[in-house]
Amino acid sequence: MSTPAETEIADHVDLRSLLEAGDEAAARAAISDLHPADLADLLDALEEPERQLQLFRLLDPETASEVVREASDHSKASLVDLLSDARLSAVIERLDTDDAADLLGHLEEDRKDRLLRRASPEVRRNVAGLLTYPEDTAGGIMKTEVATATTSDTVREVIDSIRRHSDDFHDVHDVFVTDSRRRLKGHLPLRDLLLYDDETPLERFMREETISVEVGMDQEEVARIFEKYDLVSVPVVDALGRVVGRITVDDIVDVISEEATEDILKLAGVGVESFTGASPVDAVRSRLPWLVFNFFTAGFSALIIAQFEDTIRQVAVAAALMTVISAMAGNAGTQTMTVLVRAIALGEARGPQARRLLAREALTSLINGALLGLSSALIVYLWRGEARLAIVMGFALLVNLQVSAAVGTLVPLLLRSFALDPAVSSSVLVTAATDWAGFFVFLALLSVLL
Amino acid sequence: MSTPAETEIADHVDLRSLLEAGDEAAARAAISDLHPADLADLLDALEEPERQLQLFRLLDPETASEVVREASDHSKASLVDLLSDARLSAVIERLDTDDAADLLGHLEEDRKDRLLRRASPEVRRNVAGLLTYPEDTAGGIMKTEVATATTSDTVREVIDSIRRHSDDFHDVHDVFVTDSRRRLKGHLPLRDLLLYDDETPLERFMREETISVEVGMDQEEVARIFEKYDLVSVPVVDALGRVVGRITVDDIVDVISEEATEDILKLAGVGVESFTGASPVDAVRSRLPWLVFNFFTAGFSALIIAQFEDTIRQVAVAAALMTVISAMAGNAGTQTMTVLVRAIALGEARGPQARRLLAREALTSLINGALLGLSSALIVYLWRGEARLAIVMGFALLVNLQVSAAVGTLVPLLLRSFALDPAVSSSVLVTAATDWAGFFVFLALLSVLL
Repeated sequence: MSTPAETEIADHVDLRSLLEAGDEAAARAAISDLHPADLADLLDALEEPERQLQLFRLLDPETASEVVREASDHSKASLVDLLSDARLSAVIERLDTDDAADLLGHLEEDRKDRLLRRASPEVRRNVAGLLTYPEDTAGGIMKTEVATATTSDTVREVIDSIRRHSDDFHDVHDVFVTDSRRRLKGHLPLRDLLLYDDETPLERFMREETISVEVGMDQEEVARIFEKYDLVSVPVVDALGRVVGRITVDDIVDVISEEATEDILKLAGVGVESFTGASPVDAVRSRLPWLVFNFFTAGFSALIIAQFEDTIRQVAVAAALMTVISAMAGNAGTQTMTVLVRAIALGEARGPQARRLLAREALTSLINGALLGLSSALIVYLWRGEARLAIVMGFALLVNLQVSAAVGTLVPLLLRSFALDPAVSSSVLVTAATDWAGFFVFLALLSVLL
Repeated sequence: MSTPAETEIADHVDLRSLLEAGDEAAARAAISDLHPADLADLLDALEEPERQLQLFRLLDPETASEVVREASDHSKASLVDLLSDARLSAVIERLDTDDAADLLGHLEEDRKDRLLRRASPEVRRNVAGLLTYPEDTAGGIMKTEVATATTSDTVREVIDSIRRHSDDFHDVHDVFVTDSRRRLKGHLPLRDLLLYDDETPLERFMREETISVEVGMDQEEVARIFEKYDLVSVPVVDALGRVVGRITVDDIVDVISEEATEDILKLAGVGVESFTGASPVDAVRSRLPWLVFNFFTAGFSALIIAQFEDTIRQVAVAAALMTVISAMAGNAGTQTMTVLVRAIALGEARGPQARRLLAREALTSLINGALLGLSSALIVYLWRGEARLAIVMGFALLVNLQVSAAVGTLVPLLLRSFALDPAVSSSVLVTAATDWAGFFVFLALLSVLL
């Protein structure tokens, strides 16, 4: 089974012409051994709704629902519009509850209600329950298909139950053991079931140390727990400690990737709404506010500079040198801020680690500032032959690198202490602060010394 | 079992005083029900080598090796220095092969050889083999403990084999089915073993579509495959298609997190060497080169500005306005570049998706440029009452936002086409280019029009 991207592209060119020619048999053959995830990619690449629908009709119901599950948000939205209620219902019945809830989340309120009413009682009850949890919490990403057993059950009884549910549960990694009121008491990896004889009760070999998460826990925190404890699945419990669902690692892999994307975009002053699938209008809406904010911070820089018009008229080269100070300090501040923001996101900026980190950043900026300040003073002196200008340049650069380290560490830490996301301390904020300080220190020194 | 960070801190304060008082029994009781990952955190928090060793001696051999596995690179390095060869050998014998190879990678060459010679023949053979693969490839992160069976084996035979290996294989999620020469033919999730009777041969129900990776594949590519196909474990094959190991999702979760950290740091012009555990010297070594590079790019900006000294002497406020143009274009360019770099990293900038993305970015910068250009012209006119200055400002800002979109998209795409990592197109490169263009367009227009 080959997976490289090149094959997909070739397939897609092929498939499009087959579909255009209406050659269903050949198209069906071309896609017959593809993984649903690859079919979802093809669907995305087809772009035109008409072709997408043609492809979709070639799939058997089981594959069709897998493809919907794997489709990008962009294709999911367009597929949902294309499909009839009947076809969408069939897909929903086959999906795991978390994927069904996710799909229904893409629909308008009245269509969602209509489809929920059409659904089988079991799906309706489970999925409607999931829809009540916020999207980015444990409840929002869990599924209700969870293999549970009670402490007195035997290996044989658990295996029989897994066999009975084999059509509903597409994957089982761990069995969660509860008391008679569904309160979590332990767990066992599926492998352990194979190690004991049929008549062994679970309480004899289950693992009592079982990590669980509460329904309301933030998905980022859930991801940290998976990472830290190397989990494959985790039970989700309600406020009374009763098992209500489970989260599997494949969804957590997506969470980690999404959260990293979010942080990367935020650091650049770009909202997630502005990522690959978004329209130009969404992109403008998400980015213009930061640009306008930047317009005001830069405007304030301009006002600072304007206070020194006389100085600039006397020493026009100051306008050139200021640029260097602003660029260097902005860059150094962004370096420090990025390290801090990422360390906070990974939970590596607490206690003794945080102290080591702050001391390290202070020392680093001192060394960098001294080296760069000296070199720049030397270069300015060699270029213009003016000692005072050279001293102002070197001193301003040294001072401003310390400002950038202070801003780059304090802004993320302050944001965290107000329970705000440190990643919004994007480069815009840091460069604004270092610009103000840099322009002021340089021009004020210059006007005093000349 | 409680996991929150607050408890850890409290435990750690407690534990330190118990260790200092030499109260081993109480210390042992305090840590008795902690997960190895939490013990690793405690170890890290203790900082002083003497205390770390004291804690380590309290652990039974099995837990001790788990703790070493979970320790941060920082603690791992200090633990390795503290432990005797005998103790370290005991740890290595108990670790999975991938973790043993990773630990040996932290040692100096002669100690590594010494420990390999001490190791049991089986560990020596497996681990020495793993050490030959580059760290960031499939071979570098796989383990050799892999559950395989041949097509003619029955369910009973596989279960018996899993029972025999239960001490060596700490986790099994999938059984990989091969022919008699170990060439991959299919796989089965452990759950499927429970669905069939003891005498059923695997070929009757194994899944033939099995995704595998080659030993030499880059770990980032492996992570994409796990993400796309929702895998829990994947077989690693050599050039002849023979199964030589497997990679499990817990290691992939770490890879995804690491690669995201790397991209985030690179975008800010910070090397990974400069992250949380690094010394000030490492931090300077990793960041100074970018600052020096930035020193030259900013120096070039300064030279451009210096060409227009006469213009600046006449219109000193130009120095203030230039700042706004430089800040805005740098910001807009960083927004575009970040979206592109992340889209490339996630494999979302190929084929039709890439075309949509580029068209979107062009249109976005046109809208943002028009809106901001107009507003800035208006503000300058209201502030200074000079129509020509206002026109130059507005036009320069409009043009420069188009430059920033072009630079922000082309730099990452060019880097990718040269097979370089697009994330190194950090903000430094983009802001340098937008600064040059911005200063030149603005000052040249100004000197012509005034």
